[in-house]
Amino acid sequence: MDLIGVVKTKPDYKAKLAISKGFDLYAADSESKKKFANYNIQVSGELKNLLNKVDVVVDASPSKIGATNRKIYQNLGKKVIYQGGESSEIAEGSFVAQCNYEKAEGKRSIRVVSCNTTGLCRILNSIDMNFGIELVRAMIIRRATDPDEPGKGIIDAVSVDPIQIPSHHGPDVNTVLPNLRIITTAIKIPTTHLHLHTLIISLKNDVTTAKQIIDTLNKTTRIILISSKDGFKTTGQLFDYARELGRWRSDLYELAVWKDSIKIIDKELYLYMGVGQEAIAVPENIDAIRAISGGYTREESIRMTNMTLNISR
Amino acid sequence: MDLIGVVKTKPDYKAKLAISKGFDLYAADSESKKKFANYNIQVSGELKNLLNKVDVVVDASPSKIGATNRKIYQNLGKKVIYQGGESSEIAEGSFVAQCNYEKAEGKRSIRVVSCNTTGLCRILNSIDMNFGIELVRAMIIRRATDPDEPGKGIIDAVSVDPIQIPSHHGPDVNTVLPNLRIITTAIKIPTTHLHLHTLIISLKNDVTTAKQIIDTLNKTTRIILISSKDGFKTTGQLFDYARELGRWRSDLYELAVWKDSIKIIDKELYLYMGVGQEAIAVPENIDAIRAISGGYTREESIRMTNMTLNISR
Amino acid sequence: MDLIGVVKTKPDYKAKLAISKGFDLYAADSESKKKFANYNIQVSGELKNLLNKVDVVVDASPSKIGATNRKIYQNLGKKVIYQGGESSEIAEGSFVAQCNYEKAEGKRSIRVVSCNTTGLCRILNSIDMNFGIELVRAMIIRRATDPDEPGKGIIDAVSVDPIQIPSHHGPDVNTVLPNLRIITTAIKIPTTHLHLHTLIISLKNDVTTAKQIIDTLNKTTRIILISSKDGFKTTGQLFDYARELGRWRSDLYELAVWKDSIKIIDKELYLYMGVGQEAIAVPENIDAIRAISGGYTREESIRMTNMTLNISR
Amino acid sequence: MDLIGVVKTKPDYKAKLAISKGFDLYAADSESKKKFANYNIQVSGELKNLLNKVDVVVDASPSKIGATNRKIYQNLGKKVIYQGGESSEIAEGSFVAQCNYEKAEGKRSIRVVSCNTTGLCRILNSIDMNFGIELVRAMIIRRATDPDEPGKGIIDAVSVDPIQIPSHHGPDVNTVLPNLRIITTAIKIPTTHLHLHTLIISLKNDVTTAKQIIDTLNKTTRIILISSKDGFKTTGQLFDYARELGRWRSDLYELAVWKDSIKIIDKELYLYMGVGQEAIAVPENIDAIRAISGGYTREESIRMTNMTLNISR
Repeated sequence: MDLIGVVKTKPDYKAKLAISKGFDLYAADSESKKKFANYNIQVSGELKNLLNKVDVVVDASPSKIGATNRKIYQNLGKKVIYQGGESSEIAEGSFVAQCNYEKAEGKRSIRVVSCNTTGLCRILNSIDMNFGIELVRAMIIRRATDPDEPGKGIIDAVSVDPIQIPSHHGPDVNTVLPNLRIITTAIKIPTTHLHLHTLIISLKNDVTTAKQIIDTLNKTTRIILISSKDGFKTTGQLFDYARELGRWRSDLYELAVWKDSIKIIDKELYLYMGVGQEAIAVPENIDAIRAISGGYTREESIRMTNMTLNISR
Repeated sequence: MDLIGVVKTKPDYKAKLAISKGFDLYAADSESKKKFANYNIQVSGELKNLLNKVDVVVDASPSKIGATNRKIYQNLGKKVIYQGGESSEIAEGSFVAQCNYEKAEGKRSIRVVSCNTTGLCRILNSIDMNFGIELVRAMIIRRATDPDEPGKGIIDAVSVDPIQIPSHHGPDVNTVLPNLRIITTAIKIPTTHLHLHTLIISLKNDVTTAKQIIDTLNKTTRIILISSKDGFKTTGQLFDYARELGRWRSDLYELAVWKDSIKIIDKELYLYMGVGQEAIAVPENIDAIRAISGGYTREESIRMTNMTLNISR
Repeated sequence: MDLIGVVKTKPDYKAKLAISKGFDLYAADSESKKKFANYNIQVSGELKNLLNKVDVVVDASPSKIGATNRKIYQNLGKKVIYQGGESSEIAEGSFVAQCNYEKAEGKRSIRVVSCNTTGLCRILNSIDMNFGIELVRAMIIRRATDPDEPGKGIIDAVSVDPIQIPSHHGPDVNTVLPNLRIITTAIKIPTTHLHLHTLIISLKNDVTTAKQIIDTLNKTTRIILISSKDGFKTTGQLFDYARELGRWRSDLYELAVWKDSIKIIDKELYLYMGVGQEAIAVPENIDAIRAISGGYTREESIRMTNMTLNISR
Repeated sequence: MDLIGVVKTKPDYKAKLAISKGFDLYAADSESKKKFANYNIQVSGELKNLLNKVDVVVDASPSKIGATNRKIYQNLGKKVIYQGGESSEIAEGSFVAQCNYEKAEGKRSIRVVSCNTTGLCRILNSIDMNFGIELVRAMIIRRATDPDEPGKGIIDAVSVDPIQIPSHHGPDVNTVLPNLRIITTAIKIPTTHLHLHTLIISLKNDVTTAKQIIDTLNKTTRIILISSKDGFKTTGQLFDYARELGRWRSDLYELAVWKDSIKIIDKELYLYMGVGQEAIAVPENIDAIRAISGGYTREESIRMTNMTLNISR
């Protein structure tokens, strides 16, 4: 798998770093190319030039821009991976590697779902396979913005956004796990590091101890179990943990479940979990490239990606 | 009802304002009296001097200090109102005026429950009386600290505090509404204005429209219905609303329920509500004084308090 | 002085409260009037109807909208008070009551300067009159947004906005105090309550003790001196103080100077001060109405306004 | 240079990661060793066991704990590097590699100064050598806490901490640059990423253009120049930049100066700069080990450290 080029619209520090890291940089269009020229940045061409050289496109544009780009990709007959900011109709299917890798085979376009949906699918698929899920009620406490866009944030307030209950996250989970009954609510708070979810899962089978759940999650790839006893009192330490791991960009690819929050009350499973919004979909995109290109099984692809990204399990 | 005196431990701006407003100020003890003397503040005496002049004490000490003061009050045989920061065992009963006013009659001590518990009791009692409640699942997103103690706060993180599920809030609701089945979770976020609750209430009776719930809440005292369409997009506007009302300290005494969040899904009621942590228990304390002193019915006391505090309904 | 009517563009909770407080509410234009009608809010007319009934307009529109409204006012020959969000060219003069009240006499339009400029003018005028100012260097740490618009905020970051040094605040001070040498810098931080200024003032005359400065500020209207020893450790307690004062909207009209920060080092005066961005220009607007209408001296107007707003000094 | 062992007091995730990274982990003392045993963590011994094996100790204990440890080190005659949280008297000298590397030669203990002091020394030494400094006035806007300790933070407020002007940072700079005239003020704000400094530097020599300053800083090691035009609008993007660089823990070792803030007004230089509080002293500690051990010149050590840490200049 080779990275042929990177496309940027404007000559900011990220574009400059892409070049200094040795990537071939392309401008989005001729307008954008001029901007780079004005900054004395020599790009390798425009998006259209790059497309001729690639087999698969990963469109990581801001929300809804992927929909605009779609025609360009279709005209050239390119295989495309879209992101969760796009509507599910943009692609032939929605994707979480450990849930439905095989569905991507033979498709020309798939959509890696959003960070929150990815996290939910990973854990709910595992719990459903092992214990049977009757109904999920999930409360999503969203970080308002990312650390590199602090100006999109809020201060000293909770935003009831979206005000509609249920939120769109439940139906989005159903694009990957169609038979799951799930109702979600979502709000926004003044943080930049990780979304926090509270899950209430009504189980079909009798589960009497938290240990049964822990054992199952311990066997599930891309989920880690953390404990407040180890110092994980807040999402802050979880963000710090990813930094200590020494990964590129301090990325937390795994869904992190608080082991000591897991509780069974009357056949209902309660727990807290953290979703690293910047990173959780990164391994999914790499798997999606393999899944849409063919040649590897689900297990092979996940194992390769995990090894590359230093995901231990 | 006369305010005989106010007790403070240290000569900060609040103590100075108490004097400038014309209240008689007392030091907590002789140690504390010296502190005031060092600041050239002439107090009217110590707590023990004040106690001789009063019929009822409202102990608004920080959490757990009420327990220390308890002996002093008992030795003098004074009637006492404690706050929700104390354990429920401190008093002969826990109190929310519109739920159990009559229980306070003939008691020597009662405890006004915490802000979150007060808010939950107000709405849950009303819903239970009108539609029957099978089970409540409540998620409490707590403001980390108050505006006058910003140094107790957190930054850019969610604290899973307490990590134990269920949190103590459910059992605390049961000190007022003993027969209600309720499971609560609670976390802390970097805000100072209002707690936000997500409620999921399994109803006994069939309720088919949000309007039925709205009509009931509209008839319930100390609950207001707000809408994102009127500009209430965040808890920030809710705090601002209390300021616009022109009340003392910009206090929001009412529980505020987002009308456009109310949703019935399969006999389960979902909604968001905001709890003004600094103010919601203020009317309860005034009613508690009347309830423990006798002479007024529940309706009379609530009406008088509402009128005094400019609570319209 | 009578308030004839209030103009709003949309039917939010502020518009509704204006009506419930008994004010006559007007829509900005016919478009806006329809919005109110859709919400079943009966307005008393449009802006143009209101203008016929008034002598003076206080234009408190968002920044730069005043410039658009200007023609309407001019066509009708109305006297107008603009706010500091507008360019200084919009009016015949810029205004801070205790600095240049008399300049407004006979004018048809004046501009009350912004919160930061108002605060700076109050203290700098006083210091200059009493000790002579050689040069002011001011660092303005701006709250990013107001509590009722938390969505315009930033999270966990300092914004170097504006990046240009000096910032526009210095020249704006010069619209009121033309002969003052002042250089300002300004940044934005994740708070909603009060701007904080660090002042470094090179004095012409020898001042040897902080007490000389304190005595002067104590005699200056609309400036209060606070101390960390009284519990003012942060701007949070300062905001709380305004609430404890029991004023409408918990408004802090006074510039608040930290007494224990005042320090003289080699003929340079250092200090910290807090500017309540929502309220500090309120008394200025009231005085501006009198100043432009005539009939009162500076001292009379300031005394009347202070009494009305419960400003003790 | 070999890392012989790491000492931790409690078995949190950082201790566990130290082991999983292959470091030999030691408990601080016997009490601490028990804590590790209770968590089934096998440590390699206690601090005293480790000390026998090392030539130089880097004491990175929390503030003031280094002072407690000092006797242990002295009894064993070990060379020690202390951190800026300790008083300057703890060691035989204070240290910033590019300012006074040679001073550490032959010493048994030196103190790497705090993050803010390190940043100030780097730039002020360079400016002073090239243009001559008459006087520095620096305003330090401190991040309230680190991302891994969000609970020590503040919310929606500026803390005037310390209230005393000048702050202790000026004298601390003088422990490294004894002849510099510097007056500092410092406050705390609700952020976790980077301190922000506003510098006002009165220059001895005539400097007429910002370019002269930029050229000098461009030649100074461990200082980078950034621009808002490249997307550095806030400290948030600066933190993100360090992540994009792909460094361990996303560390920003360099002092970052906003190029487009640099301004000369009447022989005074104004600028904004960001100090990565978690990382800026890391290269200093590595150099300090070499400086106290001997065998390398200043230039050799800085070049080696820069290469190891991927500091380009």
